[in-house]
Amino acid sequence: MSSIPTWDTIILGGTVLTLEPDGRPIPNGAVAISGGIISAVGPAEDLLEQAPTGEVIEASGCLILPGFVNTHSHLPMTLLRGLADDLPLKEWLESHIWPAEREHMNADTVRIGTQLAAAEQLLAGVTTTTDMYFFDDVIGETLAEIGMRAVLAESLIDFATPRCATPDEMIVKQREMIEQFKDHPLITPAVAPHAPYTVSAANLAREAELADEMEVPLHIHLSETRWEVEKLLEEKGVSPVAYLADLGVLSERTVAAHCVHVSPQDIEILAELEVAVSHNPASNLKLGSGVAPVPAMLAAGVKVGIGTDGPASNNTLDVLRDMQLATLLHKGTTGQPTVLPAGEAVAMATLGGARVLGLDDRIGTLCEGKEADIVCIDLRTPHATPMYDPFSHLAYAARAADVRHVLVRGRVLVRNGKLETIDLETVTAKAAEITARIASGDAG
Amino acid sequence: MSSIPTWDTIILGGTVLTLEPDGRPIPNGAVAISGGIISAVGPAEDLLEQAPTGEVIEASGCLILPGFVNTHSHLPMTLLRGLADDLPLKEWLESHIWPAEREHMNADTVRIGTQLAAAEQLLAGVTTTTDMYFFDDVIGETLAEIGMRAVLAESLIDFATPRCATPDEMIVKQREMIEQFKDHPLITPAVAPHAPYTVSAANLAREAELADEMEVPLHIHLSETRWEVEKLLEEKGVSPVAYLADLGVLSERTVAAHCVHVSPQDIEILAELEVAVSHNPASNLKLGSGVAPVPAMLAAGVKVGIGTDGPASNNTLDVLRDMQLATLLHKGTTGQPTVLPAGEAVAMATLGGARVLGLDDRIGTLCEGKEADIVCIDLRTPHATPMYDPFSHLAYAARAADVRHVLVRGRVLVRNGKLETIDLETVTAKAAEITARIASGDAG
Repeated sequence: MSSIPTWDTIILGGTVLTLEPDGRPIPNGAVAISGGIISAVGPAEDLLEQAPTGEVIEASGCLILPGFVNTHSHLPMTLLRGLADDLPLKEWLESHIWPAEREHMNADTVRIGTQLAAAEQLLAGVTTTTDMYFFDDVIGETLAEIGMRAVLAESLIDFATPRCATPDEMIVKQREMIEQFKDHPLITPAVAPHAPYTVSAANLAREAELADEMEVPLHIHLSETRWEVEKLLEEKGVSPVAYLADLGVLSERTVAAHCVHVSPQDIEILAELEVAVSHNPASNLKLGSGVAPVPAMLAAGVKVGIGTDGPASNNTLDVLRDMQLATLLHKGTTGQPTVLPAGEAVAMATLGGARVLGLDDRIGTLCEGKEADIVCIDLRTPHATPMYDPFSHLAYAARAADVRHVLVRGRVLVRNGKLETIDLETVTAKAAEITARIASGDAG
Repeated sequence: MSSIPTWDTIILGGTVLTLEPDGRPIPNGAVAISGGIISAVGPAEDLLEQAPTGEVIEASGCLILPGFVNTHSHLPMTLLRGLADDLPLKEWLESHIWPAEREHMNADTVRIGTQLAAAEQLLAGVTTTTDMYFFDDVIGETLAEIGMRAVLAESLIDFATPRCATPDEMIVKQREMIEQFKDHPLITPAVAPHAPYTVSAANLAREAELADEMEVPLHIHLSETRWEVEKLLEEKGVSPVAYLADLGVLSERTVAAHCVHVSPQDIEILAELEVAVSHNPASNLKLGSGVAPVPAMLAAGVKVGIGTDGPASNNTLDVLRDMQLATLLHKGTTGQPTVLPAGEAVAMATLGGARVLGLDDRIGTLCEGKEADIVCIDLRTPHATPMYDPFSHLAYAARAADVRHVLVRGRVLVRNGKLETIDLETVTAKAAEITARIASGDAG
């Protein structure tokens, strides 16, 4: 404690959960931040003894922990939230989602949809998010301005998107975007071939090469539906996982979203190649895709984080809720109440997500030297009373609305439940204008 | 519209969802209330034309709908929320829950636990709740004072409880409680034999007779775990459902909680005898019990409502969240995204719950003549923006924290998100004292 640097912000008064290995909760703890970096973590009285100067963030009654990480989403689809639900997948996509995207998604609407997604996520304690969509450079500029951390990639798919007419054009866009953001403190650019069944083998290989060359993550949908697995087995003679492995697409750079229908052999491949998995329980259930074998993946040593997927198929971007869903779901479907206990579930939504995105050297725990992505969750509510165990409350009782303060890289983005860097009224009004146009044209 | 009686309260300005058959959402609607009874529902401008007088409850930006109904719980177990989780059932009960109950549950602690449960539920838009525990007369007095509606019964079980030493004593208590509350406008007394495996055949039959004699509901745990089914098959040669049917315990009075492990034959019996089922998805998942075949039960015509179960095995009393969990869960486990669509899910948590408890002649929809149990949910939030379909937002995006006003029988119990009839600070402080004692004695 003798070498605390001067700090510019200190969070004071709550119980600190560091998420460090063997880190015990620190009651009446504090986190000091200097230049966006955590400079000290410990009991409040120890830190205050150093008589430092800076802004004090009051967190009495709160849990202070690393921010939640959303490992898979399509952010601008906030604008399509609730447009169509409860339909067979083909009808949902072909009659509602795709026509709306073709007609209405452009740089301007993507910006508004992203602001709305950032507002929702920050208010729910999500400090790092992910996107694979179109106009991801616009998404990156929007989130950087707001101050939120993200891993972003323009999607590559073998047909025209609202942004690009051809895969060649998409790869050019991806490369430009990587160049634009490669040294950005908050935005990590990536590549994102859409899925094994929508991208040719040649283009999948080109994407893997680009990711290797530029040293960026490769984000892809993988084994989401039974239909996908059957299609690949029929056309390629192997599972989607084995197919991508054969093509050289899978590596420690890969973030594979879903992995619902993976065999024990597939899980071995994922573990061996150090592929990270984004588990999206709400979306997988809502679309009728099924339940990913998360306990088996964890047992095999696969890195797993929580993803929300896009808000048209969830319909929220609430990582806390989806982590709670995951911990319940896997107990229920395995019949084992000991599966994915509270502490592991909370770790999956924080440090686990950071590992999945390759950011765990910078975020995911609260310790000296890491960047200060921090959430304070107020548990002085009837639904979190009494308090026996903070991890139990996070895994089973706390709600997004309990989030009080949110910092990313030391900057306060939510203070006392209010957004500091987004003009929510303006964003909501603009979103309403766009969605009135979408609603009037929806074929449903 | 010519015969609106004088009203004493009018809820104005939001979108009214009546939950009546074929009831369309009424934008800029209103609900007028007179003497606790709904006197008119319609467009605000029509109701205001009658120039009536009374209190105006502002609900702009809200959905106005029937309050949520919690069809199964053990309310005072709020005091044990998070005491122990993630354990095998036997260890959880024998080493943690039962010792804490024996040592700490009495009339005083039950009262505080009930106040805490009422606070949590009212803030989450639950207007009718249920309990089977001990000291249910105290629970009834507590809830009546708060103004919440409930169906309550002292549990009967073949061993001593914190309240009664013997089943004979329990039946005396049940009868006394039924006499005490039988004409109460808010509290419906009931009988509650615990489960087919914890109550003898003779006592089960006595409970059924008592329910028939006093014309009250009979609440029971049924087919919750695979273990229970195997035990009954082994000992009685039939499933728990068939066993209770043979004993004459099942009828249109029965509220059967869980029904996770029911065969197609069991479902036929439930439908034929008009047994109502309380579906508790969160508890069933968390304890590793499994997933109840709700779509099959609904298809067979069984009445199904949402229950939270007790807060030691959920760990919240949030009916809205558990309805959302149900609609996701059954899509995912059946592989059918069309299962339990938004409108049906919302109905299950409101009118469906009222039907399960036999209260649908008095509550469950918003129409003239029904009692005014109403919740206003504010959707002017990022996570419920944009608005295409109010039922979609209720089923997939809204949160307990969005609840703005709650009325039971016309009395405002939550106004602008604040409790009107519970001193939350005092209740929380008393709960903290009790739980400090429980924590110091927990064997865990």
